[in-house]
Amino acid sequence: MPGASFVTHLQAAIDGTVLPARTIQTTHQSRPLWVRYDLDAVSRAVTRADLPDRPPTLWRYRELLPVDDDSCIVSLGEGMTPLIDCPRLASSLGIDRLLIKDESQLPTGSFKSRGMAVAVSMAKQLGIQRVAVPTAGNAGGALAAYAARAGMECWVFMPADTPEVNKAESRLFGAHTFQVDGLITDCARVVQLGRERMGWFDMSTLKEPYRIEGKKTMGLELAEQMNWSLPGVILYPTGGGTGLIGMWKAFAELGAIGWLESDRRPRMFACQSSTCAPIPDAFDAGLRFAHPPDNPRTIASGLRVPNAVGDFMILDAVRESGGRAMAADEHRLLEWMRLVCETEGIALCPESAACIGVLERALRDGTIAASETAVVFNTGAAQKYTELIRTDLPTLDPDHLDFDALAGS
Amino acid sequence: MPGASFVTHLQAAIDGTVLPARTIQTTHQSRPLWVRYDLDAVSRAVTRADLPDRPPTLWRYRELLPVDDDSCIVSLGEGMTPLIDCPRLASSLGIDRLLIKDESQLPTGSFKSRGMAVAVSMAKQLGIQRVAVPTAGNAGGALAAYAARAGMECWVFMPADTPEVNKAESRLFGAHTFQVDGLITDCARVVQLGRERMGWFDMSTLKEPYRIEGKKTMGLELAEQMNWSLPGVILYPTGGGTGLIGMWKAFAELGAIGWLESDRRPRMFACQSSTCAPIPDAFDAGLRFAHPPDNPRTIASGLRVPNAVGDFMILDAVRESGGRAMAADEHRLLEWMRLVCETEGIALCPESAACIGVLERALRDGTIAASETAVVFNTGAAQKYTELIRTDLPTLDPDHLDFDALAGS
Repeated sequence: MPGASFVTHLQAAIDGTVLPARTIQTTHQSRPLWVRYDLDAVSRAVTRADLPDRPPTLWRYRELLPVDDDSCIVSLGEGMTPLIDCPRLASSLGIDRLLIKDESQLPTGSFKSRGMAVAVSMAKQLGIQRVAVPTAGNAGGALAAYAARAGMECWVFMPADTPEVNKAESRLFGAHTFQVDGLITDCARVVQLGRERMGWFDMSTLKEPYRIEGKKTMGLELAEQMNWSLPGVILYPTGGGTGLIGMWKAFAELGAIGWLESDRRPRMFACQSSTCAPIPDAFDAGLRFAHPPDNPRTIASGLRVPNAVGDFMILDAVRESGGRAMAADEHRLLEWMRLVCETEGIALCPESAACIGVLERALRDGTIAASETAVVFNTGAAQKYTELIRTDLPTLDPDHLDFDALAGS
Repeated sequence: MPGASFVTHLQAAIDGTVLPARTIQTTHQSRPLWVRYDLDAVSRAVTRADLPDRPPTLWRYRELLPVDDDSCIVSLGEGMTPLIDCPRLASSLGIDRLLIKDESQLPTGSFKSRGMAVAVSMAKQLGIQRVAVPTAGNAGGALAAYAARAGMECWVFMPADTPEVNKAESRLFGAHTFQVDGLITDCARVVQLGRERMGWFDMSTLKEPYRIEGKKTMGLELAEQMNWSLPGVILYPTGGGTGLIGMWKAFAELGAIGWLESDRRPRMFACQSSTCAPIPDAFDAGLRFAHPPDNPRTIASGLRVPNAVGDFMILDAVRESGGRAMAADEHRLLEWMRLVCETEGIALCPESAACIGVLERALRDGTIAASETAVVFNTGAAQKYTELIRTDLPTLDPDHLDFDALAGS
C-alpha cells in the first residue's frame, strides 16, 4: 500500500472552488468540502481482487481514503460490519428482500466511528492536538474514543437530554464532557465561540472534510458485500446526513474506477421523524436548502438536527438517485424498533426505526415496489438508548416459585 | 463447504465417557461435555489458504464447528473482532507488546454472542423451541438476540443488581425477562426447577455442549490474526470460564490439523477479582475443583460466578499451559478500566479490567516477563455498565459562556 494518498485537491460543494489538500481546511462559504482523488491512478493501483487479502476494516479501501502517512492512521479495528439478510422482517413488511447493515458492531457501537477514524487520522497528520465537537450523543462518544487512541485532547458538548450511555462513554474515554442547556445547535455555538480562545479544532459534522470520507466506506463495503451489484433502494436515517452524502460519493468513485457491475445506482431514501423533518419538507417543496422546523423534537436523538449544513448535498444526492426524503411517524418509532429487535435479533436504534416506518409507508403507496431489494442502515446499538426501554422487571423469589403464574406471563 | 459437520461424538470432560452427537445432550455427572471432531478429515477438507475468501465471521471456521445443516445457522454476522496493538498502554504497564482483542464489537456488544450463535444454531438443528438461561447480564442479552433471530421462545433470569443495559436489551429482544432475588446461582436454580414444567432447554454456561465451540473461535481468530504464531501470554477474565476452556481446545485442534507455526502454546492466565476468586484460590491450593467464596461480590458482574461447573476444565487448561489463576484488587477495577479507555480508546469492561490488574501484578513479581507478548480479551463494551460511570455532567449555559473557567476545568 502506498505511503501517500491519491488525493489531488479539495473542492467546495457549494460552488466548485478548488482548495489545496494537505493543509488544514474547514469549510468554504460556511459549506462543506469534497475530497477529490486521482481516480485513474487509484484504478491502476488496486483491483477488487486485492481486497480479500486485506484485514476486514475500512482501511482495506486505503487507496480511496485521504491519509497520506500510514503512521497517522488512528484505528480501533473499525469496518466490515455485517450485511444481514432479514427474511422474516421482509415478509412482515411485504418486501421480497430486506437487508440490514448493522453498524452497531463498530467501536463505540455506532456508525460515527467510521467518520471519526478518518477525521482523527487526518487531524493527526495535520498536527492538530485539540479537538471539539457538538453532539447528539454517538459522535461525541466516537470522537472521545479516537482522540484517546490518538493521544489528543478532546472536548464534547451535548444537550442535557442526550442518552446516559453517551454521557458515560464520552467521560470514560477521558474527554472534557459538558451538557448544554439547549439543542445541538447551541452546542455547536459553544464550539464555534470557543475555537480561538480554546485552541479547538471543530470536528462538527461536515465542518472538516474527512468525516465524509470515513462514512463513505459504508457504501464501499455495501458494494463489496453485494459483489459489486448495488441494491435497488437504500434507506438511511438522516440527521446531519454525512453517511448518505458519503455513500453517494462512494458509488460515483466506484463507478469511475470501474468496480461496479452496472451503471444502476440505488435510489437513496433520506429518512427522518415526523416531528423533525426539515429534509423531507424541503424535498416536497422542491427546495435545495432546508428550513429548521419550529419545535424540533424526537426520541431519536441522532435525528434531532434542525439545521444540517449539508442539506443541499443530501437533497442533491436523493434527487439524483431518483429517491425521496420521507418522514416516519414519531409516535411509532418504538414500535418499529421493537419489531426489528424481536423479529431479527438486531439491536435497531430509534433513528433507524424511522427507516422501517418510511419503508412501510413507501411500500404501501407504491414509492418502493415489493420486488426491489432494500438495504436499511442500523446506525447504532439500541442498547445505547436505555431511557426508551422499560427496565422495571418482574421479580421472582427463588424460594417461592409459581410456575403456573410464569407460564401465563 | 460441507452440509454436514466433522463431529464424531461428544465426550464427558470428567471421565471421558463417549456420548453420541446429533441428539440432545446436556451434561454427564452434572459436568460438561466436549465436542470431538474427525480432525484428519478436517485437515483434508480445508487449508489456511481457504480462509481469506470467506466472510469475516466466525463461520469461516465452519469445518471446526458442530452445525451439520447450513440452513440451521443462526447468525448476526458475529466474529473477526479486531486485535488491537496497544503501544501506549503497554508502555505504561511496562511490557514490550500488549494487544487487546476487542469483543465489544460483536452483536449485543459482548463475547457472549459467539457462544450463543453456535448454541442456538445447534438448538435449532436439534428441534429445540424454548430456551432459558440464568445470566449475570451479557449472556441473557445475547441469547435473547439469537433466540429472536431464530424465532425461538426465550426466558432470561438475572440478579436484581444486573446492569440496566442488560435488563433493557433482553426485554427489547422480546425475551421473557425476570429479576431474581439472589445470585446467579439462584437464577440457575429457577431454570433447573422449571425445565420440565416449562419445557425449557437449559442454555446455562457449560450445561449444553456447544457454547464452548462458539467461544473457541476467539482462539481460532487470534491464531489467524497472528499469522498462526500464538502469543506468549493470554489474560482472560474468568467467570464461567467457557472462553478460556474453548481457546485451549482451539489451540489443540489447530495443532492437530497442522495449522500452527510452532508447538509453543500461550500461557493462560485466568483472571478474577479479589472479592470473588474461587479459581485463583483453588489454583493456589493445588485443587482441581473450586470452592465457592463466602461472600462473592464484585462490580464486574460477569465475574460474579461463585460456582463454575467447568472449574476443573479451567484449572486443567491453566496448569497444562504453564499459566496461572490470579486475582486483581477489586478496589482498583475502575482505575484499570479508565486507564485503558483513556489511553487507547478501547471501551474496556470491568471484567477485563481484572486482566490489566493481574498483568500489572504479574509483571511486578516476574510471573510475566516484559519481553513477552500478551493478549487481553475485552469481553464486553464498557458502555453496558453505565452504573459504574458518573454521568452528572457539568452544565453550560450557551448564552453565558465563561471560557476562562472552561480552560481551567
